Amino acid sequence: MNDLLYLDDLRVGDTFKTASHTLHADQVRFFAMHFDPQPFHLDDAAARQSIFGGLAASGWHTAATTMRLLVTSGPPLADGIVGAGAKVEWKAPTRPGDVLRVESEVTDITPSRSRPDRGTVVMRSDTLNQRDEIVQTMTATLMVSRRPAQDVGRSSRRAS
Amino acid sequence: MNDLLYLDDLRVGDTFKTASHTLHADQVRFFAMHFDPQPFHLDDAAARQSIFGGLAASGWHTAATTMRLLVTSGPPLADGIVGAGAKVEWKAPTRPGDVLRVESEVTDITPSRSRPDRGTVVMRSDTLNQRDEIVQTMTATLMVSRRPAQDVGRSSRRAS
Repeated sequence: MNDLLYLDDLRVGDTFKTASHTLHADQVRFFAMHFDPQPFHLDDAAARQSIFGGLAASGWHTAATTMRLLVTSGPPLADGIVGAGAKVEWKAPTRPGDVLRVESEVTDITPSRSRPDRGTVVMRSDTLNQRDEIVQTMTATLMVSRRPAQDVGRSSRRAS
Repeated sequence: MNDLLYLDDLRVGDTFKTASHTLHADQVRFFAMHFDPQPFHLDDAAARQSIFGGLAASGWHTAATTMRLLVTSGPPLADGIVGAGAKVEWKAPTRPGDVLRVESEVTDITPSRSRPDRGTVVMRSDTLNQRDEIVQTMTATLMVSRRPAQDVGRSSRRAS
């Protein structure tokens, strides 16, 4: 088990790998029905005639699945994975049956000037399928807590 | 009813407004359970102690709901709303009971050099709540079809 990570524990270049998740056809259709009801995400025959050439998951489903993987098996940030924003690029379609996993790298760390208890971390997360193809790249700006004062130099507090 | 729109029909500065969607607490928890299972998206008491100060929807739920509104009542693009990528900024939390709607503006149009049948359109979409606060800004790069040749100058084809 990993310990919880604070801003102070992270370094540019740190990497994380998640577990994997299989995207089943019923999940693809369920997400599409609720959030992206377009024929190429819902219907095999219509999808074959579309730019996707076959049933493809909504890009937002790929993004949400990426978030699921990051939250459940990605970097164990102390106060959770909280984004101020994200840039998402869809590189290839995600298909029913694809087994997705996420590989992340910390690319920037900036302590807040106005809020000494936190900072921002930029993390690039590539979502890969079972053929090691990158289907999505997500670059997120995360709000990350700094280690609380009582955890820093606890022994000196005791001595005071 | 709007006619279907091709790249050739769009102009920079064109605007679109969607219908609205009410985000219920059970939807917030359902999405979070499946895609963003963090305490501040699932549990009232835990959320009050968090950076959100109360139950808040996952940012990816706000993004997915924005997509739903765009697909069901946004610009009627001829071959659907297909994104190559998007930049999302979460400006304020989305809460259970919030009534969301989307206002979009075309900010760039670029016909493809290599594919004469399509081009890219950059569209900025602000997601607003019932107090007219912008909770999210999404800037998406969309792949949009050009009007098929048989639709352009149909009468001259008949005359030939």
